[in-house]
Amino acid sequence: MLRELKEEVLEANLLLVKEGLVRLTWGNVSGFDRASGLFVIKPSGVAYEDLTVESLVVLDLEGVVVEGSLRPSSDTATHRILYREFPGIGGVTHTHSVRATMFSQAGRELPCYGTTHADHFYGTVPVVRELTAEEVAEDYETNTGRAIVERFRELGLDPLAMPACFQKYHAPFTWGKSALESVKNSVALEVCAEMAMGMWQLQPETAPLPGHLLDKHYLRKHGPGAYYGQGGK
Amino acid sequence: MLRELKEEVLEANLLLVKEGLVRLTWGNVSGFDRASGLFVIKPSGVAYEDLTVESLVVLDLEGVVVEGSLRPSSDTATHRILYREFPGIGGVTHTHSVRATMFSQAGRELPCYGTTHADHFYGTVPVVRELTAEEVAEDYETNTGRAIVERFRELGLDPLAMPACFQKYHAPFTWGKSALESVKNSVALEVCAEMAMGMWQLQPETAPLPGHLLDKHYLRKHGPGAYYGQGGK
Amino acid sequence: MLRELKEEVLEANLLLVKEGLVRLTWGNVSGFDRASGLFVIKPSGVAYEDLTVESLVVLDLEGVVVEGSLRPSSDTATHRILYREFPGIGGVTHTHSVRATMFSQAGRELPCYGTTHADHFYGTVPVVRELTAEEVAEDYETNTGRAIVERFRELGLDPLAMPACFQKYHAPFTWGKSALESVKNSVALEVCAEMAMGMWQLQPETAPLPGHLLDKHYLRKHGPGAYYGQGGK
Amino acid sequence: MLRELKEEVLEANLLLVKEGLVRLTWGNVSGFDRASGLFVIKPSGVAYEDLTVESLVVLDLEGVVVEGSLRPSSDTATHRILYREFPGIGGVTHTHSVRATMFSQAGRELPCYGTTHADHFYGTVPVVRELTAEEVAEDYETNTGRAIVERFRELGLDPLAMPACFQKYHAPFTWGKSALESVKNSVALEVCAEMAMGMWQLQPETAPLPGHLLDKHYLRKHGPGAYYGQGGK
Repeated sequence: MLRELKEEVLEANLLLVKEGLVRLTWGNVSGFDRASGLFVIKPSGVAYEDLTVESLVVLDLEGVVVEGSLRPSSDTATHRILYREFPGIGGVTHTHSVRATMFSQAGRELPCYGTTHADHFYGTVPVVRELTAEEVAEDYETNTGRAIVERFRELGLDPLAMPACFQKYHAPFTWGKSALESVKNSVALEVCAEMAMGMWQLQPETAPLPGHLLDKHYLRKHGPGAYYGQGGK
Repeated sequence: MLRELKEEVLEANLLLVKEGLVRLTWGNVSGFDRASGLFVIKPSGVAYEDLTVESLVVLDLEGVVVEGSLRPSSDTATHRILYREFPGIGGVTHTHSVRATMFSQAGRELPCYGTTHADHFYGTVPVVRELTAEEVAEDYETNTGRAIVERFRELGLDPLAMPACFQKYHAPFTWGKSALESVKNSVALEVCAEMAMGMWQLQPETAPLPGHLLDKHYLRKHGPGAYYGQGGK
Repeated sequence: MLRELKEEVLEANLLLVKEGLVRLTWGNVSGFDRASGLFVIKPSGVAYEDLTVESLVVLDLEGVVVEGSLRPSSDTATHRILYREFPGIGGVTHTHSVRATMFSQAGRELPCYGTTHADHFYGTVPVVRELTAEEVAEDYETNTGRAIVERFRELGLDPLAMPACFQKYHAPFTWGKSALESVKNSVALEVCAEMAMGMWQLQPETAPLPGHLLDKHYLRKHGPGAYYGQGGK
Repeated sequence: MLRELKEEVLEANLLLVKEGLVRLTWGNVSGFDRASGLFVIKPSGVAYEDLTVESLVVLDLEGVVVEGSLRPSSDTATHRILYREFPGIGGVTHTHSVRATMFSQAGRELPCYGTTHADHFYGTVPVVRELTAEEVAEDYETNTGRAIVERFRELGLDPLAMPACFQKYHAPFTWGKSALESVKNSVALEVCAEMAMGMWQLQPETAPLPGHLLDKHYLRKHGPGAYYGQGGK
């Protein structure tokens, strides 16, 4: 079932390790199959070198396990909410990558300061609030997804143009049209966070990227007029 | 003798290298077998790539070598004291990992600022004082262990809920239910130290993690209600 | 066609990865054959592990593809302008390497503070301005090349003695006598940027390298009296 | 000739790469055979992956090449002076490793702030002045060696107890009883430099390590009462 998607989800999880975004087992990637309404996710607490296509878990959008003998990632409910509420996304990634987590812990949003950022995120990466004691007690992971969705509606953000956020005290979540793209957005977020921190050291008062450069860079990689890459992906 | 434990101790020592916590030969991991009262530790000054199950040293809690032809790690006496005084621990790790050593040299404790920390350490990671000239002259490594134990009693800390400390001017020690878990706690300590340093750069006045989030994250990985991982250990 | 140059360009692109200057597909190297007036460049958006000699694209200095079935790097027009306007260069590299990009985003030039810098760059690495909305609308990549050339003429810089620049809000460009040399200059730029940032932390008022040391280090590696290396290239 | 020493020098040069102390070809290690008065050094500008025992160059203490068809490292004369003037050393390493070069460029000495430092360097790592225009014109590399020796005599330092220095505007030099030990001291210097920089961020007014701990750590690894390692070297 969903063999091709599982292979991509496996590859996407391993890309996390290759790009240095995870230590030990701290990260998870899922991919969504819109046709069947099912998503494939990493099992909880399994070492990346032991991951196989067979060990992945398939769930529906109610959170019912449809296939797989292992327990799914402890963050599964967050992924589920994002697939349900953000139409058009096909992959979700959660890591505790170091720089993006610094922004999360500090509760600081990341304005667009350069073209590396503009190539991936169309504007300021937002902060999502931490949960209340009541929300934690009720259902921590589901309510984490809801808090993200709430924040994006509040700010009027298009999740496909802003495929990332920092959750206060916690860590980043990213998404994208596919599992692999969600991981690439995690890489970009980590790098842009690092670049901003160094840039502030060099020049604390740097202005954000002018609008015409933001548009140019975002749109040469995304949307109908894109000319980056081989047009496949 | 203790073949399975030795294999875990070997794996745990190699994990130190893989996770980038040691340079050259600066680190050691041991594992304890409660049934026999013996522990297995890395030999002193041996390169990680030359480590074998056969090269490991077995000692009892009096510090007598029971098996092995090499000299045990120069920090063996510290491990011994921790096994004797901290009931329930099954592994000890000592490294000079870079960020945790910065905290040690600065003599600065690490409050819990995010969920990565809460997943591993239930509160503020404490600083243990340096030894006096008399303690050094008498028995440096044994007294290092005693100073750790003294500090945990002073603060009323449960070593299983706070499996880490920074020794002033020196470096971190961590422990856990097993040798592998003690290394994972070293990884977590290093990463949390790095995250805090970057967070302070972004937001010097950040407040620690609210108590309900500390409880949630610590308890979803530890204790009777844990639901992270596959329910193995 | 241009088999030997293609092999060098392939090797130079892979060196980017090995030296940690690129993440994902964010970088491109080209090499120029002065005899034929053609240059060889990486195809756009192709993963480095999938790059082959056959996948490289050959263009003339008008930007016409002469060989290759893939689309060339989206930055091709910038490379083209540099080959046309900077006589003597044989390779161009563009990356978003982290520290050099911090300088670019901050719009801060890099004076020569040490011999590592003097070994590669004969003076201060300049900042090139960002493009105007009109320049972006007309032809972004071609005008990026023009802005670099304009800045070097303004400052009276010899591109062979100063084979690097930071483009404001964007990232670094480097070049050299060959494709491989242009990558080595990218490595040097990244390292010198990192060294300067740390040096400023240690000593904010450090003076630049005295002239006699700049001359010595630059000239023992470059020019007629050079005695570094085996006298090959 | 000197087969065993050549193998150690090759291994020591490759350890530089493995420990991340060099980029491209920026570093060199030599080893000295006191019996014959000859030393073995890396050839200039050769990539580490192409280094072989056969490519190494053998010289006497007058700087005459005794064996080898390649040109020796451009820093050979500095190594030569150190072997002549620092009795008892058997290996010399020169790198532009990032943190130690920051200290060199900043002209800032490194006091002993922790046991990692005390395990390798018995006190404060000194800064050596840059050369004058006259010294550069006369013989740059030989005079670099002389400036190091001059500084150590000025400070009354024992080169075996303080096997490292930072040359102002340039980079570190380290040495040791053997080629391998000189590389290990380079690793230690780089790590201690990094630890101090982070420690100052955490606690700008940290006091150096108390004398009784400096003695303890230095002497448990060095000198007649040492008990670290297997008693080999």
